[in-house]
Amino acid sequence: MSNVSIIGIGQTPVKEHWDKSLRDLAVEALLAALKDAHTEKVDALYVGNALSALLGGQEQLGALIADASGMRGIEAFKIEAANGAGAGALHVAYLAVTSGLYESVAVVGVEKMTEAMNGAVTAAVSLAGDGDYETMLGISPTAVAALLMRRYMYEYDLVAADLAGFSVNAHANAAGNKFAMYPRAISRDAYVNAKMIADPINMLDHAPYADGAAALILSATDRLNGNGARAVRVAASTVATDSVSLAARHEPLWLSAAEASAQKAYAHARIAPNDVDLFETHDAYSILSTLQLEAAGFAERGRGALLSRDGDISLTGKIPITTMGGLKARGHPVGATGVYQVAEVVQQLRGEAGKNQIADARVGMAQSLGGIGATAVTHILVN
Amino acid sequence: MSNVSIIGIGQTPVKEHWDKSLRDLAVEALLAALKDAHTEKVDALYVGNALSALLGGQEQLGALIADASGMRGIEAFKIEAANGAGAGALHVAYLAVTSGLYESVAVVGVEKMTEAMNGAVTAAVSLAGDGDYETMLGISPTAVAALLMRRYMYEYDLVAADLAGFSVNAHANAAGNKFAMYPRAISRDAYVNAKMIADPINMLDHAPYADGAAALILSATDRLNGNGARAVRVAASTVATDSVSLAARHEPLWLSAAEASAQKAYAHARIAPNDVDLFETHDAYSILSTLQLEAAGFAERGRGALLSRDGDISLTGKIPITTMGGLKARGHPVGATGVYQVAEVVQQLRGEAGKNQIADARVGMAQSLGGIGATAVTHILVN
Repeated sequence: MSNVSIIGIGQTPVKEHWDKSLRDLAVEALLAALKDAHTEKVDALYVGNALSALLGGQEQLGALIADASGMRGIEAFKIEAANGAGAGALHVAYLAVTSGLYESVAVVGVEKMTEAMNGAVTAAVSLAGDGDYETMLGISPTAVAALLMRRYMYEYDLVAADLAGFSVNAHANAAGNKFAMYPRAISRDAYVNAKMIADPINMLDHAPYADGAAALILSATDRLNGNGARAVRVAASTVATDSVSLAARHEPLWLSAAEASAQKAYAHARIAPNDVDLFETHDAYSILSTLQLEAAGFAERGRGALLSRDGDISLTGKIPITTMGGLKARGHPVGATGVYQVAEVVQQLRGEAGKNQIADARVGMAQSLGGIGATAVTHILVN
Repeated sequence: MSNVSIIGIGQTPVKEHWDKSLRDLAVEALLAALKDAHTEKVDALYVGNALSALLGGQEQLGALIADASGMRGIEAFKIEAANGAGAGALHVAYLAVTSGLYESVAVVGVEKMTEAMNGAVTAAVSLAGDGDYETMLGISPTAVAALLMRRYMYEYDLVAADLAGFSVNAHANAAGNKFAMYPRAISRDAYVNAKMIADPINMLDHAPYADGAAALILSATDRLNGNGARAVRVAASTVATDSVSLAARHEPLWLSAAEASAQKAYAHARIAPNDVDLFETHDAYSILSTLQLEAAGFAERGRGALLSRDGDISLTGKIPITTMGGLKARGHPVGATGVYQVAEVVQQLRGEAGKNQIADARVGMAQSLGGIGATAVTHILVN
């Protein structure tokens, strides 16, 4: 068992924040997390962000956000792994505390996207693709995901509506999350009839880009100093990679980084998939949740989508996913998403998930993906 | 004493690499480092890069470079701290090995700048500044450095030529470095008469932007497995920050992050400045070397520049700096620079610095800066 615990979480609402800058959002989440942790000071700050170079004209976010949040001077820098940036920052924080060099550290994932023009956002999120072999040819991440979903449907004899359950579940859950961008249920019919973006991916299958920040405070478990009542242990934090280009993979329909990262996490936490009470998937597109459920051992190959049809992924199902709305309905501020996922797992394990509470939740898992699964970061939390 | 050693180094020449892409450069440096370490496999890869989003249209460099260098699957992501990115990646590698979770890890710093138009490069390096309070007003990092140098000259009654020794020393040293971009001596007159860029910073005071990659292989010292003959211990790896905006600092002429990072490093390595046999400064501009020498305790306030006049910084001086040419004459591939610095310290401590060898070098220090000292990363290596 690791020596790392999460002792505080903070989140801003996920939405179009026209009145707040990137640093405003980061500071808001950080201060909320510090307050939640009953702490004023940490030894280091790790920032997850994917797009601020292109969308904000700003780098060196570590020093910038440390200063803005009243921590001028402390160790700080940014971690980038495309959409997996926030989870990557948490992994560095985990390494830092595990090293024994730091007693407590902060993580903030932040993204500010909605002030940019649509073309700029597409260019920015396309940085996650392979510049020489994919992006140069004009294909966006959504188009790559569409190819993947189409192939999956062909291979396993499904139609797009067979994946409707992922969005329906996410939106139903978002209704119970005060930070969610779209906190309202949608019907299966709404999904089936939604406007097409990149066939077969439609408006209700594509996680909405958004502004937001989420933060976590980590502490060495053996130094909780009486602050452990609401602490949640980080039982595993693992990263694995795959080719960035989808075409370069031996089996495009198998997320090998997601599998490797999950397997390393299970081994480290000494658990098996059936010990997991909830699983925050990276549902930027439903096909990714589908493939993550397979890669992480919750479904056989080709059977991941079926879990969404039979209620298995609902709050009372066999393996609840996207329990606070997921990327799809909580919203997807790219470099912040991985931190939101883990903050939501903490809410569940603390029993603070309100009407979305998973009964007796003890083991929660979150898996964040960079690009179309080129980077996979898995966290297992245990109460 | 830490449990981290550097067992391999690799560098590409620093120059305009018209025939090599960013990933080509990274792979070349990584494979050289693996060969130097007599190793084929590492547990993780940390990439330092500052500018590829803007200049290369590419992010997710962790997964991308892991795959390109034959390490598909391993943990990998990117660290960004402006010009301090490479050193930041090394710091994460240090945390990773110190955590005990990994036996050996790789670091690569890489930057590809010279294919971009000049305006694009200025925009990219300006990401290091404060977007809302500096860059938005049109001031570039070089212009900020010029203000800093002018204020220093005013405060301590100096002229620009008093700082000439930094460039003269760097160029003299670069002549002995086969990887250097400008391996030739310059005269003091050449410095004084060089074309002005941002008064008082001239062409021979400004480190040239370039393409290049440098890599390191780190191993747990207690697991060297007979591979320790040329291993160099990492005695300290520390990071500190300051406000990104120069105007927001209480004392603009004092690099407080450089001081804090150096002090933490001395404490951790249990040494004092006079134990240091060589010091790789971040001489993007001579004023930065000047202020680093003061902040790190090698000169009193206002006396840093004087060290460059009296031969104290030369290979046989009291505190040799930029011993392989520094940013100024080895060249400055921004996100790679911090890794080059440390690779050069390793060369010195191994006694492999050729005609640039510091006699009996046992303790070497490198300090990399992000922006105008907003991030400072210090490494102390001991043989």
